[in-house]
Amino acid sequence: MSAIRVPVIEKIFSANDRMARLNYDRLQKDRVFSVNLMASPGAGKTSFILQTINRIKGVHRVGVIEGDTAPVTIDADKIIQAGMPAVQINTGGDCHLDASMVSDGLDQLPLSELDLLIIENVGNLICPAAWDLGTDVKLLVASVPEGDDKPYKYPNIYRGLDVLVINKTDLLQYIDFNMDYFRQGVEILNPGLVTFPVSCKTGEGLDAWIDWLTSKVKEKKLH
Amino acid sequence: MSAIRVPVIEKIFSANDRMARLNYDRLQKDRVFSVNLMASPGAGKTSFILQTINRIKGVHRVGVIEGDTAPVTIDADKIIQAGMPAVQINTGGDCHLDASMVSDGLDQLPLSELDLLIIENVGNLICPAAWDLGTDVKLLVASVPEGDDKPYKYPNIYRGLDVLVINKTDLLQYIDFNMDYFRQGVEILNPGLVTFPVSCKTGEGLDAWIDWLTSKVKEKKLH
Repeated sequence: MSAIRVPVIEKIFSANDRMARLNYDRLQKDRVFSVNLMASPGAGKTSFILQTINRIKGVHRVGVIEGDTAPVTIDADKIIQAGMPAVQINTGGDCHLDASMVSDGLDQLPLSELDLLIIENVGNLICPAAWDLGTDVKLLVASVPEGDDKPYKYPNIYRGLDVLVINKTDLLQYIDFNMDYFRQGVEILNPGLVTFPVSCKTGEGLDAWIDWLTSKVKEKKLH
Repeated sequence: MSAIRVPVIEKIFSANDRMARLNYDRLQKDRVFSVNLMASPGAGKTSFILQTINRIKGVHRVGVIEGDTAPVTIDADKIIQAGMPAVQINTGGDCHLDASMVSDGLDQLPLSELDLLIIENVGNLICPAAWDLGTDVKLLVASVPEGDDKPYKYPNIYRGLDVLVINKTDLLQYIDFNMDYFRQGVEILNPGLVTFPVSCKTGEGLDAWIDWLTSKVKEKKLH
């Protein structure tokens, strides 16, 4: 009888998946709706979170975990200035958050007082896609200046999404960006994906996103 | 006497560094000046390469290695249409090129006929920074829409650069981007870094880059 072999890479993902499940259960206990927010560097993740907070802060309390590859608190400071609790996680150069880092972040947040948790992942279209954090949904903030070919070039991250935000639509008039070509690429990978074109600069399109988000937050509170 | 321990991570980098050295020697033999071109997704890497080829094609012959995480040949096809040899390397979802992949790419290129090799790395500001490919220089294409805080958030990649290109300067008039703040961040990490602000759309700033590049290509031919 030969020995049973377990490939090392599978073991790592299994540990991450177990930790992600624990995160999910902790958030479920306090009925906190949670979002794993991913994007390329500079797509406007933090602006999008700030706009979201501004629009729901009278109704819902939001906690934020900020993932950074360096010990900078630029983004976390902005969230705290907006009046919401934020935790900064420095990955020490690592290219993504994992469920264990998020677990450490959850320890620092008043979960029982929150309705919504947003986890701002490291700016990267590749590595974060492979690591489940235990959230309710995975959201990507794409942006117009990145170009309309990104679904074709980074298919893995688009395949796993629950929500897509297309930010910086105010720049559509200055940039060659074929929205139909972009959306066709998304549709092939993830048919029927919930999508919100928005401009965090002008506010255009954000109401539709907020309606969707608040309905999800309320739904989570009830179940 | 205790056993000598070699951490696994160090062993991997050592193998990559040895392979990078072999790549360097191969390019040195044919006096091909080489550039490891890195950037965030959508910063305009391929446009920058095409503009460069257009401006020097009468004088120098350019080969291109295109790194992609998916089996798409969008970028490689554009280079071939521009009349230069290109090889596409699909990393199979991996977040960066390594020296071994580049070695495979070199096998497919007519090195003795080339003056310049440009390696377009995977769109990512984190992982490519850690992997030497054996090129003469490491170049980053930053872009205005990514925001002026990127050197502060992704310091590792800025630290290791030999050349910085700031692309999409035509969008400066529509975007809040503080060039002084951006440049201060770069200066702290990499004092005196050679920097070219350009617009691949309008062509502004490209002449200075081409002057610098052609002087380097000629220098390599002589030594």
